Amino acid sequence: MNFNISKPNQELEKPLQHKIDLKTKPLGSLGVLEQLAVKIGCIQNTLSPELKQPTIIVFAADHGIALDGVSPYPQEVTWQMVANFIGGGAAINVFSEQNGIDIKIVDAGVNYDFEKNSGVIDAKVDYGTKSYLRGSAMTNEQFKIAMKRGADLCEKIHCEGSNIIGFGEMGIANTSSGAILLNLLADIDLKECVGRGTGWDDKGLKKKYEILKKAVDNYKGDHTTENILTYFGGFEIVMIVGAMLKAAELKMLIMVDGFIISAALLAASKLNANILDYCIFTHKSNENGHKYLLKHLEAEPILDLGMRLGEGTGAAVAYPIIESAVNFLNQMASFEDAGVTNSDQIIN
Amino acid sequence: MNFNISKPNQELEKPLQHKIDLKTKPLGSLGVLEQLAVKIGCIQNTLSPELKQPTIIVFAADHGIALDGVSPYPQEVTWQMVANFIGGGAAINVFSEQNGIDIKIVDAGVNYDFEKNSGVIDAKVDYGTKSYLRGSAMTNEQFKIAMKRGADLCEKIHCEGSNIIGFGEMGIANTSSGAILLNLLADIDLKECVGRGTGWDDKGLKKKYEILKKAVDNYKGDHTTENILTYFGGFEIVMIVGAMLKAAELKMLIMVDGFIISAALLAASKLNANILDYCIFTHKSNENGHKYLLKHLEAEPILDLGMRLGEGTGAAVAYPIIESAVNFLNQMASFEDAGVTNSDQIIN
Repeated sequence: MNFNISKPNQELEKPLQHKIDLKTKPLGSLGVLEQLAVKIGCIQNTLSPELKQPTIIVFAADHGIALDGVSPYPQEVTWQMVANFIGGGAAINVFSEQNGIDIKIVDAGVNYDFEKNSGVIDAKVDYGTKSYLRGSAMTNEQFKIAMKRGADLCEKIHCEGSNIIGFGEMGIANTSSGAILLNLLADIDLKECVGRGTGWDDKGLKKKYEILKKAVDNYKGDHTTENILTYFGGFEIVMIVGAMLKAAELKMLIMVDGFIISAALLAASKLNANILDYCIFTHKSNENGHKYLLKHLEAEPILDLGMRLGEGTGAAVAYPIIESAVNFLNQMASFEDAGVTNSDQIIN
Repeated sequence: MNFNISKPNQELEKPLQHKIDLKTKPLGSLGVLEQLAVKIGCIQNTLSPELKQPTIIVFAADHGIALDGVSPYPQEVTWQMVANFIGGGAAINVFSEQNGIDIKIVDAGVNYDFEKNSGVIDAKVDYGTKSYLRGSAMTNEQFKIAMKRGADLCEKIHCEGSNIIGFGEMGIANTSSGAILLNLLADIDLKECVGRGTGWDDKGLKKKYEILKKAVDNYKGDHTTENILTYFGGFEIVMIVGAMLKAAELKMLIMVDGFIISAALLAASKLNANILDYCIFTHKSNENGHKYLLKHLEAEPILDLGMRLGEGTGAAVAYPIIESAVNFLNQMASFEDAGVTNSDQIIN
């Protein structure tokens, strides 16, 4: 599957910064908000960008490796949490509701049958992946299906009027996939990539590492991104890769959440590096590997609140700050409009 | 003026954390949001805290020292910016409007006469302070008036139904007062306390330092907080000290903004240390001295966005995150409600 991602219009950087510099405030005094405003203007190719129908898609799937003991949580928690998303009781519900973000819950491959009218979007590829301790998590065909379904869902949301999208995930054991993607795609020592996930103690962390080390040592395939995703990915992760690449192709802003979503982005960026120009990193996760991932992607997230919950919660909590960036650019008065003496122009 | 600030109810810490730990998420996975939720619950003495009518009061005043060349901006910018606040064109207007925060604009001592019906709250003590290069910025009587007017304004807002308050400031040259307060009250080297303010280059920064060094060297008074505030303060700064102390007395949450507001808090905390229990630090300012101030106050702000604009903008931008803390505590389902297996209880 190919994605045609063009670069944002960097020629607008100067005129956007000029517009910002005429606002009634000291030069540069809005820091990161100024950088965000310039980035968003370039992506939308306008001096007056807008955020429309912010949406977070939460992809859920099960992982065969969960049954090998990499997580303290039983696999059933995946579907139970999907039911919780639908019922409105999860963290992502609360933060999205607060900040006017639409959420979509997608069954990418949960080991459970949801009722037809439950509200879950059915994109199930299978009832979970196989354990990559003993072979490939999915087939090549399943990989292609997952990529396409992710891309199609993103396109649908874009057609409905959204121009800013974030991604969440739910899948017991998916920090294990994330860790291996980081290890193999960014060449970071596996020990640094493996974290406590939902809450391992030291002993559990060691066990998780040993299982994943064995899985990686067993791998005989080549190191193309597609093959690594097929062997070690999850259905939700591959769908997110497809959805992200499509989002960038459609010139949508991509809100990048924590560890798993950043690992999906790492894979997406290996397939098409231009995607990074469309990304806003929302949150630095407390999951150990995330700092290495962010360093590899040269990313500085907006927030660092010690969160490690997944579901897209970092994006949902950070969204008002992205709004603030767009709002000051569009709504603040200039020195001239407000009749304020602009000393920056005198002294600079 | 005495303030009777009692401690929050720390006995609620455990039950609040217990309520949080039963929510459908891994233990501790909401990081700083969990700490905020516990703090707010203890302050409001309830397991179900609420944020009511968030308000930011922007206090504006002029400083005699401005005429001695400590700022690149002319003094007239103070009143021009107050007019901009009233006109709705400043950054604080945009962010407050976005986040549902009420703003009040107060003339604490601006060197300008605003029209009666302009919308500016008249609390003017004088047409600016005198330059502390040649004597005390204000009289003892003016200090008392400013403290009382700040406290009274805060009480009025509390009576109108607000339980969370932030403070902004506007006053050309007020980073100079802030720097000296930090130097004298926290014993930080003046060189570290003096920053670029609204935008000095290296040469201007050196000049500002030399002027302030001379002012401090000239000071022969004793080092009580009241005397230092009287000699080196601004009317807006002293009103903020009074308003903050009253806010804590009334058990309101105090959103602490950047450098100037933190300097006011430093002074307030020397008058009554209990105030710190009511404070939420919203933003790490890019003004150099702020990191020392935060360290002295043992504070970790929510945001670090490289902002240095004043006006209370850090508090306004951070407010939705404080809302998120209260919302997850009140609205998220528990494991039991949602029928989700709680492995934390199994493994811990």
